[in-house]
Amino acid sequence: MPTRSTLRVRYAETDQMGVVYYANYFVWCEIGRVEYFRQLGYDYKQMEFADDCHLPVVEANCRYRSPARYDDEVIVETRVTAMRSHLLKFGYRLLRKTPEGEQVLAEAETTHVTVDKNMQTRKLPQRYAEAIRATL
Amino acid sequence: MPTRSTLRVRYAETDQMGVVYYANYFVWCEIGRVEYFRQLGYDYKQMEFADDCHLPVVEANCRYRSPARYDDEVIVETRVTAMRSHLLKFGYRLLRKTPEGEQVLAEAETTHVTVDKNMQTRKLPQRYAEAIRATL
Amino acid sequence: MPTRSTLRVRYAETDQMGVVYYANYFVWCEIGRVEYFRQLGYDYKQMEFADDCHLPVVEANCRYRSPARYDDEVIVETRVTAMRSHLLKFGYRLLRKTPEGEQVLAEAETTHVTVDKNMQTRKLPQRYAEAIRATL
Amino acid sequence: MPTRSTLRVRYAETDQMGVVYYANYFVWCEIGRVEYFRQLGYDYKQMEFADDCHLPVVEANCRYRSPARYDDEVIVETRVTAMRSHLLKFGYRLLRKTPEGEQVLAEAETTHVTVDKNMQTRKLPQRYAEAIRATL
Repeated sequence: MPTRSTLRVRYAETDQMGVVYYANYFVWCEIGRVEYFRQLGYDYKQMEFADDCHLPVVEANCRYRSPARYDDEVIVETRVTAMRSHLLKFGYRLLRKTPEGEQVLAEAETTHVTVDKNMQTRKLPQRYAEAIRATL
Repeated sequence: MPTRSTLRVRYAETDQMGVVYYANYFVWCEIGRVEYFRQLGYDYKQMEFADDCHLPVVEANCRYRSPARYDDEVIVETRVTAMRSHLLKFGYRLLRKTPEGEQVLAEAETTHVTVDKNMQTRKLPQRYAEAIRATL
Repeated sequence: MPTRSTLRVRYAETDQMGVVYYANYFVWCEIGRVEYFRQLGYDYKQMEFADDCHLPVVEANCRYRSPARYDDEVIVETRVTAMRSHLLKFGYRLLRKTPEGEQVLAEAETTHVTVDKNMQTRKLPQRYAEAIRATL
Repeated sequence: MPTRSTLRVRYAETDQMGVVYYANYFVWCEIGRVEYFRQLGYDYKQMEFADDCHLPVVEANCRYRSPARYDDEVIVETRVTAMRSHLLKFGYRLLRKTPEGEQVLAEAETTHVTVDKNMQTRKLPQRYAEAIRATL
């Protein structure tokens, strides 16, 4: 089951076309990733500070289906789609809540490497790897 | 030949990992697109206001090679890689200027549909299409 | 009583100093304003689209007391501090939730004029003005 | 004489009112600050990394005179308006280039304390202080 997190579109996130600027969907994906770890029982902040494990993005992709608009309630569905020793892949569905149900706004993927604070690759700490593996 | 535009990394574009936040590369791609039209002799602002032709993104992809850092001088190379009646594809290379030459930061693509202000698809106005075709 | 809305600091909102970039506090104030209207029973989106009343900022001020950090839970307290025919002033307190209570991050004010979509000043529609007056 | 730096308004910086979102003016002020140091012969990046001197903002204020729009050429005029041992004040004028001359978009001030990387106040290094004093 994917993690679901909810946010409301900010005025700052719109552009003069009257819809959400396309780069901001990637900010929402990051919110989904953080929630993913939180619902797994972990804290991404702790992963960075206590475990010196960071997840820079090496590839990001988004397919936009329907424009998000100011004040929309957006659900970010997040799941891990692949895990290897130094690599983690997330898949996302961004949905708009409507009175009739949920409408797909976009689908996205991000690929991450696991590095230390000096940007050297390192293994994902064991306990995160195990918790994620249980979801696959 | 791709269009080349230059920018300097802003403090606001960095995150606590000490590098540029990944979504901001897509903002730089947009700067490249605008410059692409400007060097073709056109003004994207005019395309929107005078010609009622907008270019929302339907797909965006970026592969990150090397992290950009605060105050880096970044070159955005932009070219159109495909054009069909209602669709335009751009390819980008993001480079960092260094004393030794240019280093690849990222490669990206964006796919756009041509729509009017009501988000209905429409053809790219003839003169833009011709100018772009001449570059392919 | 001020309106209270809660948000969580996004990775995208931090900078390389490891704290929230100063301009983002103004984005949070905007979230507080929207919540203010929602708790009054109104929808800022409706005010813009149905009533053609927009609230561009003419002055903004923020005093930063303590840096907000990634993943902090932030409370935005918002109240209207002054209202005249074409002018609205909001005051904000930004607080961090901690196990020990709430810590002041910043205090801010924004002053707005009421305009139509052509940026011409107009009166705040009667029902908004009355609802706000009742809070003063 | 103030430092003058030029930028072009990005699509990402606009909002659905069709003008630049108010928080972004503070990002432009930061660009002005960096240019200020560069034209003094210093590099803000060096100040942070080599000299462990950071300039977090303790107060920020902006008065908006005229809305900036997409693709506008904006000039940021920056000067230091006050300096004390642990405190630096900058004043800004944001101007739009037009065929007829320059139009004031906004006036802003930011107040900064000088701190080390642990956010403890420290003196502005001597050579920066001297260079700045010469401009006052």
